[in-house]
Amino acid sequence: MTEYVLPTHANALGNVFGGQILAWMDLCAAICAQRFAGCICVTAGIDELSFEQPVRVGQVVRLEARVTAAFRTSCEIFVDVRGEDPSTGVTWPCVSGFVTFVAFREGKPAKLPELLITDPGERALHEAANARRTERLSRRKQ
Amino acid sequence: MTEYVLPTHANALGNVFGGQILAWMDLCAAICAQRFAGCICVTAGIDELSFEQPVRVGQVVRLEARVTAAFRTSCEIFVDVRGEDPSTGVTWPCVSGFVTFVAFREGKPAKLPELLITDPGERALHEAANARRTERLSRRKQ
Amino acid sequence: MTEYVLPTHANALGNVFGGQILAWMDLCAAICAQRFAGCICVTAGIDELSFEQPVRVGQVVRLEARVTAAFRTSCEIFVDVRGEDPSTGVTWPCVSGFVTFVAFREGKPAKLPELLITDPGERALHEAANARRTERLSRRKQ
Amino acid sequence: MTEYVLPTHANALGNVFGGQILAWMDLCAAICAQRFAGCICVTAGIDELSFEQPVRVGQVVRLEARVTAAFRTSCEIFVDVRGEDPSTGVTWPCVSGFVTFVAFREGKPAKLPELLITDPGERALHEAANARRTERLSRRKQ
Amino acid sequence: MTEYVLPTHANALGNVFGGQILAWMDLCAAICAQRFAGCICVTAGIDELSFEQPVRVGQVVRLEARVTAAFRTSCEIFVDVRGEDPSTGVTWPCVSGFVTFVAFREGKPAKLPELLITDPGERALHEAANARRTERLSRRKQ
Amino acid sequence: MTEYVLPTHANALGNVFGGQILAWMDLCAAICAQRFAGCICVTAGIDELSFEQPVRVGQVVRLEARVTAAFRTSCEIFVDVRGEDPSTGVTWPCVSGFVTFVAFREGKPAKLPELLITDPGERALHEAANARRTERLSRRKQ
Repeated sequence: MTEYVLPTHANALGNVFGGQILAWMDLCAAICAQRFAGCICVTAGIDELSFEQPVRVGQVVRLEARVTAAFRTSCEIFVDVRGEDPSTGVTWPCVSGFVTFVAFREGKPAKLPELLITDPGERALHEAANARRTERLSRRKQ
Repeated sequence: MTEYVLPTHANALGNVFGGQILAWMDLCAAICAQRFAGCICVTAGIDELSFEQPVRVGQVVRLEARVTAAFRTSCEIFVDVRGEDPSTGVTWPCVSGFVTFVAFREGKPAKLPELLITDPGERALHEAANARRTERLSRRKQ
Repeated sequence: MTEYVLPTHANALGNVFGGQILAWMDLCAAICAQRFAGCICVTAGIDELSFEQPVRVGQVVRLEARVTAAFRTSCEIFVDVRGEDPSTGVTWPCVSGFVTFVAFREGKPAKLPELLITDPGERALHEAANARRTERLSRRKQ
Repeated sequence: MTEYVLPTHANALGNVFGGQILAWMDLCAAICAQRFAGCICVTAGIDELSFEQPVRVGQVVRLEARVTAAFRTSCEIFVDVRGEDPSTGVTWPCVSGFVTFVAFREGKPAKLPELLITDPGERALHEAANARRTERLSRRKQ
Repeated sequence: MTEYVLPTHANALGNVFGGQILAWMDLCAAICAQRFAGCICVTAGIDELSFEQPVRVGQVVRLEARVTAAFRTSCEIFVDVRGEDPSTGVTWPCVSGFVTFVAFREGKPAKLPELLITDPGERALHEAANARRTERLSRRKQ
Repeated sequence: MTEYVLPTHANALGNVFGGQILAWMDLCAAICAQRFAGCICVTAGIDELSFEQPVRVGQVVRLEARVTAAFRTSCEIFVDVRGEDPSTGVTWPCVSGFVTFVAFREGKPAKLPELLITDPGERALHEAANARRTERLSRRKQ
């Protein structure tokens, strides 16, 4: 997903305002989640979201999402956002974070397919996702 | 901060779409941070954000923010979002989470005032914020 | 109701454009009217709306609404809008005016509860509202 | 000025939401005022604005504005808004009202040209505008 | 159709961004097509669209549309867009082009009325439209 | 470039409204042109744009752009837009067309790099672009 930054997306400093990037991240992650789930997915939470460098009006925002973990009816998506100056090709890290979705079919939480894990990097991501999920569920109980 | 939900804020299900709520949370938290800091504040991160129940078109979104911790040049804001049916007065939890900001004055990180802590509940929040911050800094180093 | 002014709300001078403030006033008054009426309320008119000082990009718009008069199926809401510089805490008058709503239930004008009037200030507001209403009805007849 | 009503302009009932119409009226009146004044014009007030019938998504909003009075540095614009079903050609009254502007040149209120009045209807409008202005100025003093 | 250019319509250079003008052209042409057809019209194509000079924030965009050709269930609309400085009255060519629509009634392509052609200029436009249509249909076949 | 269709992008039929797709096409093509040119590019024209099938709220719009011809200071970009149902993975043609840009450096038209043409398909596209350009220039002269 790629977005050209117009003045309508800017804050008072001429950078994309944080809330606009969050809105784009949510949409990008939702598309990724729905492709994986094969049904409607609704945002359930965000973790470890961290802003690095801003993107200015006239530059480009590039978003990439991938599934890092799939549980029974929820999945976690990692979204990586980079800035790009389209005239020079230079890119830089802008934001990244994890968005969790719940899959719904006919109004009820829907069972998700298993996530194929093929290498140690993917396994590490999945375990970290598991830890975040355990923490989130324990916070809910409080 | 209070927002009336119009069709322009909705997703395909007729609820406020997640990204729109995130954008409102960011603005609400930014106002709170700037009032505390006395200068421009820029979003640095989001943690433990968790969605409870949706808000529909024709209903109202109410956001409340307060400072939970202040560090040297950054502070953490807790934002609590509730849905409201203005015709019945019924309200319900919608989202909550922590947004971290860095204060800027003349383009450089600015020293923040100390946060007055007066009761054990505030102290507990501040300690939890401290833990989240340590974790975030250690993630950055990786 | 509180709004952070972004470039997307600005006119060519860098102030919130008048129409945007009017849109926020209408929403703020509508929420107030619906809470009072307990049902959907539709804008019927605006009187004595007067702009004082502008609010700039990067500043904050604060809106407060209260019921000034209730008639059989319509009510009048006073909306007061102030600008705020969130970094200094300074505020100033921006706009104020009266918005009239008609309450609807199942598509038909709905009877409103009586407005509790407890002090002379409220009584004066109610009488002025009455005068505005008489004038509006006589204009309609022409 | 003509606007096609899209879902992005609608309220929860599928009609143009009041605030959106107010925003269009302000823009339409501002263009009319600037053409008359020959310089930037800033919204100063709204009087006797009254909604008749709604306009729905898929229909068209038509706005017409004309100068009803010119004072030293301010002028009053009458805006008449009608709904139109573009498929049948049927039109109906939607809103009308008076918007007052102050003219600015190099940041200071600018002297306006005289308004040519050629018939009794125009004279009546100008006198009514005068009365509204006297009332507005006396309200300001309070 | 007349639009006042706000910062929300601008690109990074302070001019209306091309996509915004295209959106206004599409709406303006759609209203014109529906008035002619007497039913819903859906955009089918754009030809020979050419940008001349930009319009800046604070200036005005004026759009005019007219039917240049009517076929069995589709019609071609010419849209001419001019910029205007409302303070000086100066106008200039901004964009023009041809938008083709298909008329729909109850979900099916609807027969259009004949277009009255009364002078040689109109006849020339109709013949050129015919040529564009033949070319478009032959492109579709490939 | 990928966009999730929200109600804010829809027309009265629940499909993306044509003008919104045109706006996305313009942005997508502009990014592609700027990457190729290494400087700001401004929309100069659109040719042979043709709509196939609509995309509905809740579905996804996918845009792909590539340079089809480079002249001295202008280039032509082909944009192909497809609809996608993210739950099923099904995609379909939505719109395609050619957008022409002029490259600018310090306010003046800028010389473009040569376009590498490596196969007969690219050569055919370039020749067709040449023909469209000749036609556009001859239209301008009239």
